[in-house]
Amino acid sequence: MTQPLRLGIAGLGTVGVGVVRMIQKHGDLLQTRSGRAITISAVSARSRDKDRGVDLSGYIWEDDPVALARRDDVDVFVEVMGGENGPAKESTEAAIAAGKDVVSANKALLAVHGHALALAAEASGSVIRFEAAVAGGIPVVKALTEGLAGNDITRIMGVMNGSCNYILTRMENAGLSYQEVFDEANALGYLEADPELDVGGIDAGHKLALLASIAFGTQVDFGAVQLEGIGAVSIDDIHHAADMGFKIKLLGVAQMTGRGLEQRMSPCLVPDTSPLGQLQGGTNMIVLEGDYVGQIVLRGAGAGEGPTASAVMGDVMDIARGIRISTFGQPANTLRRARAAQAAVPAPYYLRMKLLDKPGALAKVARALGDAGISIDRMRQYDHADTAAPVLIVTHKTTRTALDEALAAFQETGVVYGDPVAIRIEAV
Amino acid sequence: MTQPLRLGIAGLGTVGVGVVRMIQKHGDLLQTRSGRAITISAVSARSRDKDRGVDLSGYIWEDDPVALARRDDVDVFVEVMGGENGPAKESTEAAIAAGKDVVSANKALLAVHGHALALAAEASGSVIRFEAAVAGGIPVVKALTEGLAGNDITRIMGVMNGSCNYILTRMENAGLSYQEVFDEANALGYLEADPELDVGGIDAGHKLALLASIAFGTQVDFGAVQLEGIGAVSIDDIHHAADMGFKIKLLGVAQMTGRGLEQRMSPCLVPDTSPLGQLQGGTNMIVLEGDYVGQIVLRGAGAGEGPTASAVMGDVMDIARGIRISTFGQPANTLRRARAAQAAVPAPYYLRMKLLDKPGALAKVARALGDAGISIDRMRQYDHADTAAPVLIVTHKTTRTALDEALAAFQETGVVYGDPVAIRIEAV
Repeated sequence: MTQPLRLGIAGLGTVGVGVVRMIQKHGDLLQTRSGRAITISAVSARSRDKDRGVDLSGYIWEDDPVALARRDDVDVFVEVMGGENGPAKESTEAAIAAGKDVVSANKALLAVHGHALALAAEASGSVIRFEAAVAGGIPVVKALTEGLAGNDITRIMGVMNGSCNYILTRMENAGLSYQEVFDEANALGYLEADPELDVGGIDAGHKLALLASIAFGTQVDFGAVQLEGIGAVSIDDIHHAADMGFKIKLLGVAQMTGRGLEQRMSPCLVPDTSPLGQLQGGTNMIVLEGDYVGQIVLRGAGAGEGPTASAVMGDVMDIARGIRISTFGQPANTLRRARAAQAAVPAPYYLRMKLLDKPGALAKVARALGDAGISIDRMRQYDHADTAAPVLIVTHKTTRTALDEALAAFQETGVVYGDPVAIRIEAV
Repeated sequence: MTQPLRLGIAGLGTVGVGVVRMIQKHGDLLQTRSGRAITISAVSARSRDKDRGVDLSGYIWEDDPVALARRDDVDVFVEVMGGENGPAKESTEAAIAAGKDVVSANKALLAVHGHALALAAEASGSVIRFEAAVAGGIPVVKALTEGLAGNDITRIMGVMNGSCNYILTRMENAGLSYQEVFDEANALGYLEADPELDVGGIDAGHKLALLASIAFGTQVDFGAVQLEGIGAVSIDDIHHAADMGFKIKLLGVAQMTGRGLEQRMSPCLVPDTSPLGQLQGGTNMIVLEGDYVGQIVLRGAGAGEGPTASAVMGDVMDIARGIRISTFGQPANTLRRARAAQAAVPAPYYLRMKLLDKPGALAKVARALGDAGISIDRMRQYDHADTAAPVLIVTHKTTRTALDEALAAFQETGVVYGDPVAIRIEAV
């Protein structure tokens, strides 16, 4: 394998430019390690004239990424444009149809169309790699697909969107409201052009769906991810959770249960002493649990030019070294279509409510919980200046169904003001 | 590649039995993921009669691991016996000479003879994989060799011996002396038969040397690791370090400097809020730093049947999938012979001493530091009942040479009792 490995890079944003820089800077290192020169044949992006601060003069320019994907002098199509459909999808399909290998950072495309693309790649003899699509520089796809390949994976968890974790930790550290920190982060350019992709949990949900497919041998199914963003997380809950020894995280959880595949991306409480609880700022963390390996925790930058380029280049180096593994770790036609679990497995819950300050109020709430079969682990009532007493309850494990029953019963007690807050506590 | 991949397993201790169990339990899963059946042709261990709680009746028994390594029905020689020389070395060499692939959990063998074995493997077309030799179930060899292959690795750090971390955190949590916890751990069977392998830092040093070879493209050189065990760590220093916001860890550090390759395994202070500082008990943690990826932290069980078997099986699965990478990530004949850095890069230091309680004593110590070019970051003097005042100093960055000069000068001040304690503070 002494022929150079020739790339066609579609997309010259932060990631694409990072990949170009890495190849220009580390050419010798890459060749020594992989045994082949890694070269760039051609590039493509929306604007040819934009100054990107990197010398592109040695590469052929293609306006059309589909044409780039089909070029004879391209062995590997590097898709770092993004977008669930449109040019990203068309060019990736064209590359696969032409028998090219694909390295992609496009989580949306793969989470939605990944199974079809994997089938197409196997038909044409291509490989698709997507380390850069999940948790930036953290080599978690590789860890899961290869390093832990002997394990029955029992659960995947993670903080997979740095912007959300930044917002939540900034709220806590500065005592600011969600809206204040959201506006600040948006002004600083920390959020996607459509911020809902971040704060709505969509971006993180894409990543979770990709990992779940590998872990459980199932067809990637983003549509089945139960999504709940961080928009409703209040600074009060962050403070009260801290009082009880918890942090609030936008947590992804995927596990195979007797009732099907559970995929959730939602605010959860985790113990503040756990690795997930201690994660501050824009960093990502993925927790992988297997029947033999136990718990593995991976932590690193989830975005940015350097980390994402590092992930793209890890995939390129694998291809240069002749590593050819199925897209989701096993032949696409062996991936099962998973039934989606309708309900999450039981868990303890954090409840916050305001109670009318009169004798017997708490007893009524406790009775409603008891009637729903829910027992109380811890309870705390706070000082208050008015007639509404803030009450926190940490329950023992219960189903969401039982909890909803109790919450409905609260309304009939006549002692609960408004809607109580209920947040799942994930055992990590 | 529809032929089964046939293993010969040498060593039926905890790890070997774990591998046998994993193959018996997960046969279908392994075949689906790798495209090949993973089978065991033959096994070898010291005692054939011992009941290991696992059915070995389907496998041929070989008394001699060398004969096992040469069997025609063995594709991969799995060496989980251990030992730097003797049967482990002979059988590994025999396997390579016979063109077999090797999966090894033997850190001592590889850290000492790894370069020669890698050269031999390339000559015979074999691959050697050793994920299980470093940090148990954590797929760190893979992360470094493959996932981060595009990076210039700038530093590796880690807590790589769970027994030492158990001892240090148990000392702190229970307020016990080193000797008390050592005796306890030894009685519980937590330490190697020769405990010096653990507490002397040798086992962890082996792992560091292996990672350094991959990271820096150098011939593995365990002899150049500066080793210092945890035997001299006192409970006083653990408590005082905690007062100043630090934890004491047996920390491995490897980095390429202008003066050569620095490889150290020694007690260091790290901030108690850092991932390394927060690591409790027998868990391992490896920190990898690259010029593009930034800092990646990997955490998991560093030993035990399940985690180590998981690592062995990850390597076996790679071979089943046709992944063939050079032992240390690049052809063995391109690995450089690194000059060993004689001195560690500058760092802040923690100093603890007892000072004669009389006017001007502290000034003399401060002057000795100043004369050596060392400035003081923080200083704390504690209450004391006698004439010896406990004093803690955290210096700014300095070389060990300057520090030794200051420590020598302390002795001439006439105000310092005995030998001060000096422990490096590693920026993590």
